[in-house]
Amino acid sequence: MAQQDRAIRTRRSILEAAAAVFDERGYNSATVGEILTRAGVTKGALYFHFTSKEDLALGVLDAQLAVGPFPDQSSKLQVLVDQGMVLAHRLRHDPLVRASTGLALDQGALGINRGTPFESWVAQNEDMLRQAKEQGELLPHVNLRETAELFTGAFAGVQTMSHVLCDRADLDHRISVLLSHVLPSIAVPAVLARLDMAPDRGERIYAEIEALQEK
Amino acid sequence: MAQQDRAIRTRRSILEAAAAVFDERGYNSATVGEILTRAGVTKGALYFHFTSKEDLALGVLDAQLAVGPFPDQSSKLQVLVDQGMVLAHRLRHDPLVRASTGLALDQGALGINRGTPFESWVAQNEDMLRQAKEQGELLPHVNLRETAELFTGAFAGVQTMSHVLCDRADLDHRISVLLSHVLPSIAVPAVLARLDMAPDRGERIYAEIEALQEK
Repeated sequence: MAQQDRAIRTRRSILEAAAAVFDERGYNSATVGEILTRAGVTKGALYFHFTSKEDLALGVLDAQLAVGPFPDQSSKLQVLVDQGMVLAHRLRHDPLVRASTGLALDQGALGINRGTPFESWVAQNEDMLRQAKEQGELLPHVNLRETAELFTGAFAGVQTMSHVLCDRADLDHRISVLLSHVLPSIAVPAVLARLDMAPDRGERIYAEIEALQEK
Repeated sequence: MAQQDRAIRTRRSILEAAAAVFDERGYNSATVGEILTRAGVTKGALYFHFTSKEDLALGVLDAQLAVGPFPDQSSKLQVLVDQGMVLAHRLRHDPLVRASTGLALDQGALGINRGTPFESWVAQNEDMLRQAKEQGELLPHVNLRETAELFTGAFAGVQTMSHVLCDRADLDHRISVLLSHVLPSIAVPAVLARLDMAPDRGERIYAEIEALQEK
């Protein structure tokens, strides 16, 4: 293995260890020592890649949204649904995604600019809503920004509740319920009738995304 | 002032100080020393009322939902809306309510059973939805428990986002947006058309509640 590959792997394993520790203990309670132990690397290796606990947290936050392109759909609202359902699926299965969301919500992590993950997520939702509007998929009263922000905030709260109550075991189902309650207020009936918001939608679409990337 | 009155006031001022410190710093970062300083009481006085930081947090959580009876409305969905809008209003203006919600969401506060505030809130929503169903206000497909849980989780997330982005300055508006996106999926049209979900609804109803209590 080339030296550069080894450095990339080390960096990744440190980030995964940091993610797991942040997820379990919260940002403020986590220590660099715990992350070192979990990652099984030397102090020197860790500080080669990250200068501080905050730097580790920023690395985890950066890793959040990295996922391959979504399969195109004739309905842009379906893509919006797919983005939400895939995130729900990844939150259950990827510790980096879990920790990143936790950091964005962790009231203790005041050293970090916590607005940023919300804002990039709102922007992504707003962009997809705009495309849906251009195709005539939205009811005329919809305010793109308000709806994008509502989706983001409501998703974050539903995932927190699922985390607290059952360690996210029912998250796919809860996000499906959220979408089923909100889409009827924004989609024209002909589009609404064809949307797939089933709880296993995220798992199916994520498998498609991964298959596309392997090609 | 009788000794008992003085004790009740001291307890209340300690709780308010604890609430403010938890709200600003998060549960894990907060110290009993800071709470002492903020409350301006002696260590002896604090430990007379509360045995530990966790005990203080439980006291704050207990204070959350205490509010007088809501004005009755012919529509039970209007009462559900009112409960949400009044909570949004109180979150902006009452540090005990703010801190209690924060504790329920604070990922760091693992020593506390964080499920409880969600559960009492879900139960309250479900009860109101059941009354609405009995009066024929709900569309036939509504699952009372799912919708009650969705309201609770979505509300919590929307308030977290408002807290992070602008210290809750726009919370009334954001909760009004949430309700406007969800009610059309659960209310029969004749009820929906008459619901008041305006951003200032919480302030108006809270004033009514306070006026009723003063009688």
